Amino acid sequence: MRVIRDPGKLNRLLKGVRRSARSIGFVPTMGALHPGHLSLIKQAGRDNDTVVVSIFVNPTQFGSQEDLNKYPRPLKNDLALCRKARVDLVFLPDSKIMYPEGFATFVNVEKLGDILCGTSRPGHFRGVATVVAKLLNIVAPDVLYLGQKDAQQSVIIARMIKDLNFPVKIRVLPTVRQKDGLALSSRNVYLNEDQKLDALVLSKALCLAKSLIDHGQTDASRIINRIKELIGKKKQARIDYVAIVDLEKLRQIKKINQDCMICLAVKIGKTRLIDNCLITYD
Amino acid sequence: MRVIRDPGKLNRLLKGVRRSARSIGFVPTMGALHPGHLSLIKQAGRDNDTVVVSIFVNPTQFGSQEDLNKYPRPLKNDLALCRKARVDLVFLPDSKIMYPEGFATFVNVEKLGDILCGTSRPGHFRGVATVVAKLLNIVAPDVLYLGQKDAQQSVIIARMIKDLNFPVKIRVLPTVRQKDGLALSSRNVYLNEDQKLDALVLSKALCLAKSLIDHGQTDASRIINRIKELIGKKKQARIDYVAIVDLEKLRQIKKINQDCMICLAVKIGKTRLIDNCLITYD
Repeated sequence: MRVIRDPGKLNRLLKGVRRSARSIGFVPTMGALHPGHLSLIKQAGRDNDTVVVSIFVNPTQFGSQEDLNKYPRPLKNDLALCRKARVDLVFLPDSKIMYPEGFATFVNVEKLGDILCGTSRPGHFRGVATVVAKLLNIVAPDVLYLGQKDAQQSVIIARMIKDLNFPVKIRVLPTVRQKDGLALSSRNVYLNEDQKLDALVLSKALCLAKSLIDHGQTDASRIINRIKELIGKKKQARIDYVAIVDLEKLRQIKKINQDCMICLAVKIGKTRLIDNCLITYD
Repeated sequence: MRVIRDPGKLNRLLKGVRRSARSIGFVPTMGALHPGHLSLIKQAGRDNDTVVVSIFVNPTQFGSQEDLNKYPRPLKNDLALCRKARVDLVFLPDSKIMYPEGFATFVNVEKLGDILCGTSRPGHFRGVATVVAKLLNIVAPDVLYLGQKDAQQSVIIARMIKDLNFPVKIRVLPTVRQKDGLALSSRNVYLNEDQKLDALVLSKALCLAKSLIDHGQTDASRIINRIKELIGKKKQARIDYVAIVDLEKLRQIKKINQDCMICLAVKIGKTRLIDNCLITYD
């Protein structure tokens, strides 16, 4: 496994891979790798000849009041996990090389980036779209691997890839959860023991919603109210949003009679957690 | 010469070119080709194994009050010129395939896009950056050829390429002029005979400025005043801006003691023309 810090060097190196018609699978991460990331890396390995993982805590996607500085950076452990997962190349740039003096170009996905998580995190998805555009140009992968937990992010990146004609396929893989249901997230380390118990309310709320739908409930607002009621019982939980949206434009739907997604953002103490589940028909 | 309308098809076709390590030179145009474009195409041919020209009148770079509908589209002649200039592939998409329903992603180069031509054409350079990002992803050229006449555009595209890590080199080639000095532009066809004579004041103003500098004038505002005075004598001419700026950030400079650019935008009747000249030291 090689660790490369320079974007130009990585791009040149991968040019050789592309010329020999070997496929490249790419997993962009902010490090603090957990089994969710590893499931992406393993799938990338099954699908491709070469696996590239980037580890970069991207400053442009953090708000000024957010956790950029305290975001976990267990680099040694991350590199060991990558090695064990048979990653070929780790891209490990620093902020100065990604955003040098005079940097001025941003990629913005309109509307999709302003709703749901975008409401309480203005500018977040602009930062995400910009860094992913940069990474796609540097790595030029055949397939990009993303996790379903960051559902809005996946939809926005898919829109950007289509709109800007990036020649790459996307695979979005299922959220990996603890046995108790908690969706894995690098931010779970912020939770104390009590909060970890309260945080279970997110996945429980999604299970409740699913079971209501299974029993014939089709009224989105009723489902949302039941979710809010359940989460409201937890003292440390403060709801950011509960929404049921279509899968492409992320617009709130009223009736559950099409493929859709139930998504939540809840603050447990100071830690903002998100989770979602897909409802699909065929 | 092949004419291709589908972005995906062009991208797949060029993948073969890249795999065989043949280099691709790319000239993006809005058609209405003149010897300025042809100089770019010829240079692309000298430098590369494969030459790709795009012809696309990009709607997102036109303001609502601008000349999108009447912009010249002499397609037959353009294709004949491309064939004669030994272009390998012409990319000829339509607006619907470039901006399908739901399109929402824009690339914006901050600050650089808001000054000079950006002041009177808000959104113009966002449209330019967006379409060039799309074209670069579709064609993935080794070298991108641009004309010095659209100087601000070149600076903005260079900034975007650097910021978003597009793996492409830029070559900016000198403005091609008529014998009388008028910079070639597809918009010159809008001028009547009287206006064609008045339009010569742009290049004459630049010559005046150069000669002032050659004779030791270093005060930018004095040079600008002399230019304004000269242009002011033409009844049909209305100055949009006259500026002397540095070459990277396009900030106005006070003293001519560094590499810089004198740039003009002048309306002759209803036709907005631009021109510029470089002042370089070594």
